[in-house]
Amino acid sequence: ATLPFTRPRCLLPLFLGLFQGALLIFFALFITYDEPSAQAEDANLVANQVYSTFPFFQDIQVMLVVGLGLLLTFLPRYGLSALTHIFLLLNFSMQWVLVLQGLIHHFHHGQVHLDLHKLLISEFAAVTVLISVGAILGRTSPCQLLIMAICEVPVYLASEWVIVNCLGVLDVGGTITIHVFSCYFGLGVSKALFWAGQKPLHPKETPTPRSDLMSLMGMLILWVFWPSFVAVLCRPGDAQHRAILNTFLAMSASAVTTMVVSSLLERDGKLSPGHLQNGSLAGGVAIGAVADMAMPPVAALALGSLSAVACVLGFRFLTPLLGRKLRLQDQCGIHNLHGLPGILGGAASAVAILVASKDTSGSHFSQLSSVGGNASEVVGEQQGDSGVSRQALCQAAGLAVAIGLSFVAGLLTGAALRLPCLARPPERLCFDDSLYFKLQGEDESLGPGSTTEEGVLALKERV
Amino acid sequence: ATLPFTRPRCLLPLFLGLFQGALLIFFALFITYDEPSAQAEDANLVANQVYSTFPFFQDIQVMLVVGLGLLLTFLPRYGLSALTHIFLLLNFSMQWVLVLQGLIHHFHHGQVHLDLHKLLISEFAAVTVLISVGAILGRTSPCQLLIMAICEVPVYLASEWVIVNCLGVLDVGGTITIHVFSCYFGLGVSKALFWAGQKPLHPKETPTPRSDLMSLMGMLILWVFWPSFVAVLCRPGDAQHRAILNTFLAMSASAVTTMVVSSLLERDGKLSPGHLQNGSLAGGVAIGAVADMAMPPVAALALGSLSAVACVLGFRFLTPLLGRKLRLQDQCGIHNLHGLPGILGGAASAVAILVASKDTSGSHFSQLSSVGGNASEVVGEQQGDSGVSRQALCQAAGLAVAIGLSFVAGLLTGAALRLPCLARPPERLCFDDSLYFKLQGEDESLGPGSTTEEGVLALKERV
Amino acid sequence: ATLPFTRPRCLLPLFLGLFQGALLIFFALFITYDEPSAQAEDANLVANQVYSTFPFFQDIQVMLVVGLGLLLTFLPRYGLSALTHIFLLLNFSMQWVLVLQGLIHHFHHGQVHLDLHKLLISEFAAVTVLISVGAILGRTSPCQLLIMAICEVPVYLASEWVIVNCLGVLDVGGTITIHVFSCYFGLGVSKALFWAGQKPLHPKETPTPRSDLMSLMGMLILWVFWPSFVAVLCRPGDAQHRAILNTFLAMSASAVTTMVVSSLLERDGKLSPGHLQNGSLAGGVAIGAVADMAMPPVAALALGSLSAVACVLGFRFLTPLLGRKLRLQDQCGIHNLHGLPGILGGAASAVAILVASKDTSGSHFSQLSSVGGNASEVVGEQQGDSGVSRQALCQAAGLAVAIGLSFVAGLLTGAALRLPCLARPPERLCFDDSLYFKLQGEDESLGPGSTTEEGVLALKERV
Repeated sequence: ATLPFTRPRCLLPLFLGLFQGALLIFFALFITYDEPSAQAEDANLVANQVYSTFPFFQDIQVMLVVGLGLLLTFLPRYGLSALTHIFLLLNFSMQWVLVLQGLIHHFHHGQVHLDLHKLLISEFAAVTVLISVGAILGRTSPCQLLIMAICEVPVYLASEWVIVNCLGVLDVGGTITIHVFSCYFGLGVSKALFWAGQKPLHPKETPTPRSDLMSLMGMLILWVFWPSFVAVLCRPGDAQHRAILNTFLAMSASAVTTMVVSSLLERDGKLSPGHLQNGSLAGGVAIGAVADMAMPPVAALALGSLSAVACVLGFRFLTPLLGRKLRLQDQCGIHNLHGLPGILGGAASAVAILVASKDTSGSHFSQLSSVGGNASEVVGEQQGDSGVSRQALCQAAGLAVAIGLSFVAGLLTGAALRLPCLARPPERLCFDDSLYFKLQGEDESLGPGSTTEEGVLALKERV
Repeated sequence: ATLPFTRPRCLLPLFLGLFQGALLIFFALFITYDEPSAQAEDANLVANQVYSTFPFFQDIQVMLVVGLGLLLTFLPRYGLSALTHIFLLLNFSMQWVLVLQGLIHHFHHGQVHLDLHKLLISEFAAVTVLISVGAILGRTSPCQLLIMAICEVPVYLASEWVIVNCLGVLDVGGTITIHVFSCYFGLGVSKALFWAGQKPLHPKETPTPRSDLMSLMGMLILWVFWPSFVAVLCRPGDAQHRAILNTFLAMSASAVTTMVVSSLLERDGKLSPGHLQNGSLAGGVAIGAVADMAMPPVAALALGSLSAVACVLGFRFLTPLLGRKLRLQDQCGIHNLHGLPGILGGAASAVAILVASKDTSGSHFSQLSSVGGNASEVVGEQQGDSGVSRQALCQAAGLAVAIGLSFVAGLLTGAALRLPCLARPPERLCFDDSLYFKLQGEDESLGPGSTTEEGVLALKERV
Repeated sequence: ATLPFTRPRCLLPLFLGLFQGALLIFFALFITYDEPSAQAEDANLVANQVYSTFPFFQDIQVMLVVGLGLLLTFLPRYGLSALTHIFLLLNFSMQWVLVLQGLIHHFHHGQVHLDLHKLLISEFAAVTVLISVGAILGRTSPCQLLIMAICEVPVYLASEWVIVNCLGVLDVGGTITIHVFSCYFGLGVSKALFWAGQKPLHPKETPTPRSDLMSLMGMLILWVFWPSFVAVLCRPGDAQHRAILNTFLAMSASAVTTMVVSSLLERDGKLSPGHLQNGSLAGGVAIGAVADMAMPPVAALALGSLSAVACVLGFRFLTPLLGRKLRLQDQCGIHNLHGLPGILGGAASAVAILVASKDTSGSHFSQLSSVGGNASEVVGEQQGDSGVSRQALCQAAGLAVAIGLSFVAGLLTGAALRLPCLARPPERLCFDDSLYFKLQGEDESLGPGSTTEEGVLALKERV
């Protein structure tokens, strides 16, 4: 019975194998390492760069590979798939980013010199894919997810170039360029892919206490390492220090506020595990755009609280509404965790720029803008009030670009994912590891023919 | 039926919400960041401080949020609650410490400048709450735990001020100020709260192999990162290096000794998971007070072994005895993990000071005392033998203050927690996540009316 | 019935207790710390060494204690034992290495000065024991494992001395000295211990989806921190930077290639969890010998892909073949994860040396060899083509020594483990935590006398 479905799944090894082969050729032709530094001073510099970047890099790897993977294991029979798909997509997307960046770079400057910083940039690009997956998790095949990664990464690179380099948007933690972008891309994909609208609740979709516990562990790992994610690309020194503190404050406020709002919304004051798993991270999403700006600590706390409120309210009211009205399927609620807090964070960055300039009539602003790394040259010249309001407008424009571009690109990508050869799993096999994994002794244990007593014994073995 | 119990639970969002509001106002008024450093040299200094402190800070965050949370999931149906309560208490207590420190600081020097070091100090204070919770876990409501945090933090700050600043106690890893203090505070709370004495064994209190596995993972995470906890506040250089090595040696000896003692005590030479989960960490508790002192490596090994012996014997003999004689309830055995090893460590610090001075007739001691950070000025003047024995006496006095002050304060706090409005859960609902969490499909699955076959199938879904 | 088996298990506490006692005496006599540095410059140097080594050290601790432990929990009823045995063996072996190194050092230079670098070296030696255990996991008692550690560590130290110091083999990540050595040592032990050949499949040997999930988490933790393991002993600066990048690339290629090969081999294109858990790490094993050499990034990618192919093919074809033909039992497939990729890596190092010298006619090679730390003096003199091919031959000779020496030593060790007093568990009690742990309420719950309904309820409690 499953034959007509399983046949096209040979696509996955074929596709991945071809990609790995092409990757080898590409690396052989275009990518190299820096020449070792001849002088002791340069060697020291390299060593210091490694020591200052590598711990952040490892923290982010733990977040993405372990934390995000576990966060998505809330589907009780889909844990292996969730962990594996995230792991595959992270590796595939990073390789794909390296290829694309290599191509772009090649046409300008010749061979690409790989270093830790380039890996970090490619990891940030891969994050967008991992976030977008949340909208369609469980009802898609690995092939569909890979095609989505293929499409999303170049759009991200283009959008990031427009937002940061053309518009000069300040966004050190990727609130606008990563979170908002990937959220609306994922929603676009979901809309186009599940055109008919919200699916009925699948029996395997409901979390169990155990799967909620694993997912909670994932959230806690993400929560702990989030300051590394926001601060890694900051200018070392005060800006990075402030980014770490702001992120910590925002996430601490998020955690507490989530419990307040969740227990107000649920019957009997109980907490919803889903709210906790998402709301506690909302502050980290929102703070990214303002983390290194000159603003008082209370602003970080307030933004964290506000974004947690938005996230929990989104789960309770907006997601069902979008499902009913726009027939939009959002499996993991990425609109609540990445969309709403991301928009809040983008708006906050515009406000922070306006307020900071009024406080100090310009002098503060020049220092603020100097903090923004990439964009400092763009803004540096435009002193005075007009410069300030232009920068605030740019933040808003960046937000609009991120939303619009990603949603349209997502819709097109989702349409491509409807191709029948991509092996979308049939509804009854969704959310089930046994579709993608050879699980020993799984399906025989409680088959229809077995008696209850056999069932209990078989179950005992499996517990 | 549960209505009269669940009604007062609206307290939690009310209380937390008011606290978050007050926190925002307080931060707006009193807390700010350092001005960015104008000169490149200063910026470099800040960057170096971030690089030298932040990895330690992240390690400690992992310990508290993931490690300690998992350690307490040994209660098989209380895992979500244990993780969530620890997470909530950590955030709440840190915010509360920042408020209190801000108030104290404000009256002396005006606005508080928040930095990573202050966060670290507030994290250390929050640890005391997380430890004390162990005595009453599972039979208390979140509201009770928050009130406990409200009471414990100021007492801790006062006790730490007396012990470190007035008595000049050397205690870099918090053996006396954190572990001993929080243990006896927790026992005091438990004594006053469960006045009638030891509860009968609750059916949901018994760990399962799976919950033991999660708890063991938590122990291993704590074990790995413990050296960061002990060494983070040491003077950089030799003292910090030695603190790392001593902590590692003590914990390594603890791990092996625990297996020896546990398998000697149990029938058939089997190991008790509970002994492992606690005994392996005992060395880390005890070493804190002496970690950076000038003592040979064998002392760290011996202290680690000894404290593991004390911890396991405590579980086997002392906890049942205290339960019977003093009617003292100690849910997680914090007296065995934090009390006994803490007292051992405190005593060891006095001995180490006496021995070190005899070895080198004073000259060594001045170097020893110079290691102790805060206390160096106090001790620095008192050279010679009388100074040495006075310092050893101070260590003992600090231990006595930590025990006495905390137990009395704990008793008072426990009495306050008996207030009926704080919603202590009724006995039959203890140790159960479903009291605090909206668990989907949980309670229907194996209700009284269902047949066995339905039960097996429902169970299969949940497995 | 279990009496005749359980009696000799008092050996474990006796043995461990005696060892701890001897360790204390040894440390008291021979091991000390460095004198604190008198000058501020030296103190700064120590502080910088701590900051540059300690994060790597912590990463490796997480890998071994948490990651490797979890990786071995794929046996569903043996999770507590797997985690605990790994934890015990790590601590015991490190202590044993410190003793042996202390003895060796003592006869040359007097007292040993313990520091973080010596701990790291002893940790590397302990890794060999943890790898070899994989061949015999589940069918051996803790006593047997400790005796194995006792035997393996001195052989490793001797073999490492021969390979690195005498032959001048370049192997910064331990591919030859650690992975290949410990693999064939473990296989030797298994061959001698289970002489009669491959055991029939034990009913408790089959992983469940849940135990596969835990094991997958362990793999992901190992995968994330592997670059720290390979790069920690590299020369700071370019070599370390390159080692990190090469390891990352190799592991990324491994992860993707494993999915390709695994889904090609299994029916319906499904993935095997066991392939994923091992194949994704194969690249890290292979890259160790060449990680810091001057080679293009594409070589790291290719080596990672190739070793993943070898690993998965090994699981599918070689392990059953070895079982049938040589009657060799390899419980966790260490030959596929450590043996085959290790040999590949060793061969690759010889090729890399030959190719690098041809590329740049010698000048490159001198720089290559200068990278190799310990071996630089040996090779430094032998410029030119003859020196190059001699170095390549040395790599091959080192590989041969590692394989031959370890297999013979393993056979002898395995013969010693057959001593009846070491309490090998009987077949029906293998792979079961209840043999080593006092599990509360475990065995009563589903005994033969209980009715089905009681069973379901008891099961519900345990779920």
